[in-house]
Amino acid sequence: MKMKSLALRPIGVIHTPFKQVEGTPIQPVYAPDTRGTIEILPDFHAGLKDLDGFERIWLIYHLRCSSPARLHLKPFLDDREHGIFATRAPCRPNALGLSCVRLLNVRDNTLEIAEVDIMDGTPLLEIKPYVPKFDSHPAARAGWFDEQRVHRTHADGRF
Amino acid sequence: MKMKSLALRPIGVIHTPFKQVEGTPIQPVYAPDTRGTIEILPDFHAGLKDLDGFERIWLIYHLRCSSPARLHLKPFLDDREHGIFATRAPCRPNALGLSCVRLLNVRDNTLEIAEVDIMDGTPLLEIKPYVPKFDSHPAARAGWFDEQRVHRTHADGRF
Repeated sequence: MKMKSLALRPIGVIHTPFKQVEGTPIQPVYAPDTRGTIEILPDFHAGLKDLDGFERIWLIYHLRCSSPARLHLKPFLDDREHGIFATRAPCRPNALGLSCVRLLNVRDNTLEIAEVDIMDGTPLLEIKPYVPKFDSHPAARAGWFDEQRVHRTHADGRF
Repeated sequence: MKMKSLALRPIGVIHTPFKQVEGTPIQPVYAPDTRGTIEILPDFHAGLKDLDGFERIWLIYHLRCSSPARLHLKPFLDDREHGIFATRAPCRPNALGLSCVRLLNVRDNTLEIAEVDIMDGTPLLEIKPYVPKFDSHPAARAGWFDEQRVHRTHADGRF
């Protein structure tokens, strides 16, 4: 199986209070009071029409991680090793991040967001509206997450 | 603001019954009986450890779309135009798809999945576990989707 590489171009940049991995919230749910802004590049500005009706948006972005991708690791929320694709840890092949943030406001090419778990200066690759009938599965079994062995809300320096 | 392009490498390929855009389900929720398989490339196989405990997984993949990216369009589920980032339509800048499919089985480097809205041969870029406490927001307002003006479950030939 041969597969070509793909070149992606950022559509904007995410500004947040988090200048380093350590201390950054590990998911939006652990950052209820955190705010940030997204600056959308002029070429993509028109694509924001009607986004302001959505309470939440998905952001897909390029994770900034200080260590290389690993296939097995101990994530922030467990004391056992798992495969990277069974975790939400940042040091992943392709370094794609996915966060469901709260959208507060759209003003010209700037989005104001809350519940932000993203490092400052992160390149944004995609925005999609959060649609509960597509995205919400409150009863889905969630493997090792369902055991809740470690309670932590912010990143330490491991990645 | 200058931003570098990013090169991403597929981690696998998605096999489904859908050989063309027309007739492909537009979201997993509209494809309850559809099955597919994912073939993970050998380099990434170890990253699957413990994924089998999850009922659902996020797939991020490179959308196959027959028309170029558009910033304004009429999506499948409405008769009005919206900005691309306020829709889940396929012809998007960076062509990143996001689907929450059901995971049936993990056998060596092959994942069996259900509720599949993805075209056959699609390059897979990322897998993340679906975690309800991070991803489930059943009451989130969803802009024009909340008005349900058009009822359609499968793609036509518009994109």
